[in-house]
Amino acid sequence: MKFYTAPHTCALASRIALEEAGATYETVRVNFGANEQRGSAYLAVNPKGRVPSLVTARGVLTETPAMLLYIAQIFPAAKLAPLDDAWALAQVQAFNSYLCSTVHVAHAHRMRGYRWADDPAAIEAMKKKVPQSVGECFDLIEREMFEGPFVFGDAYTISDPYLFTIAQWWELDGLEASRFPKLAAHRERMRERPAVKRALAMEAGEG
Amino acid sequence: MKFYTAPHTCALASRIALEEAGATYETVRVNFGANEQRGSAYLAVNPKGRVPSLVTARGVLTETPAMLLYIAQIFPAAKLAPLDDAWALAQVQAFNSYLCSTVHVAHAHRMRGYRWADDPAAIEAMKKKVPQSVGECFDLIEREMFEGPFVFGDAYTISDPYLFTIAQWWELDGLEASRFPKLAAHRERMRERPAVKRALAMEAGEG
Repeated sequence: MKFYTAPHTCALASRIALEEAGATYETVRVNFGANEQRGSAYLAVNPKGRVPSLVTARGVLTETPAMLLYIAQIFPAAKLAPLDDAWALAQVQAFNSYLCSTVHVAHAHRMRGYRWADDPAAIEAMKKKVPQSVGECFDLIEREMFEGPFVFGDAYTISDPYLFTIAQWWELDGLEASRFPKLAAHRERMRERPAVKRALAMEAGEG
Repeated sequence: MKFYTAPHTCALASRIALEEAGATYETVRVNFGANEQRGSAYLAVNPKGRVPSLVTARGVLTETPAMLLYIAQIFPAAKLAPLDDAWALAQVQAFNSYLCSTVHVAHAHRMRGYRWADDPAAIEAMKKKVPQSVGECFDLIEREMFEGPFVFGDAYTISDPYLFTIAQWWELDGLEASRFPKLAAHRERMRERPAVKRALAMEAGEG
């Protein structure tokens, strides 16, 4: 498998899952600084021009929630999701869907406002609201969703690396970790996992 | 099961899936006009204040991609997803994740810009870009993703009612159906399905 990624993106979640699963894969860094994600070579891999992309013998897979579930399914021994319980799996997918479509989207208004408006003043107005909108998402996760020590209690799942990845952005989004005590402890707990250490070290090594 | 919904929202996708599956459920309409989705009674069901929510014996499930997969899993006879093929299922989940986190989000900037900016001029600037941003998403689906006659070829899946639901919003988003010939034919094809007719009639009956 070939894993297309870029540092400081949500691709980190899938990389951690691949590391947790002990997967063998080759990493290809997409250079966002050189706008490679919009170049024809990468668009041939993923016409959406986003990371991550996972190239397998059967084709290309994109979208973090789908990729995380796929990794959990093809490496069942890693026990990354409750694959035999449709209800519990639905809760994992619902959590990841919230991260993807609400939390990550709120965060994206800091750097990618041009997706949703052309006016520079509007793009500035979007940046300004990020601490509030992202903060409210994490308040809700802290108060209503997170069970602890992992997202779904004692069982580590694919929701944990995804939450960890987006929680890495708190400070850049203008949020203090002390506002979310349970999630901050989760972030520290995650940083101690060998798979997370490996994924972060690889990312740092790629610049 | 109890299904919380509101007309003209993405909840239609899950309702169609429930109808396709022949599920027995009670419908509760959340009155967005009266702001019921932010009221304490509904927030006790879904603290995110969104629809759909599906209340089951085991608890509450939210988020369209998770709900669609759950319906497919608990009603396997309806054959709404390739449950025995992790790769094919991942493609379905990737498609639905794109609808949820990119297409629906682009659309939401027409009516819900207040989520991402406070300045009224910024909210107007967001509205203005919706035809372009949503249009580009559907161009990509038409050109790169949609196989036909259904999203994944001959097999009807949970991606079909979800695509249909968001394609219902084209005209309100300032897009003409003729721009997307394959998707427009899919929209008409979907409207002929008994389950879709039932879901639309129920929604119309609820105001």
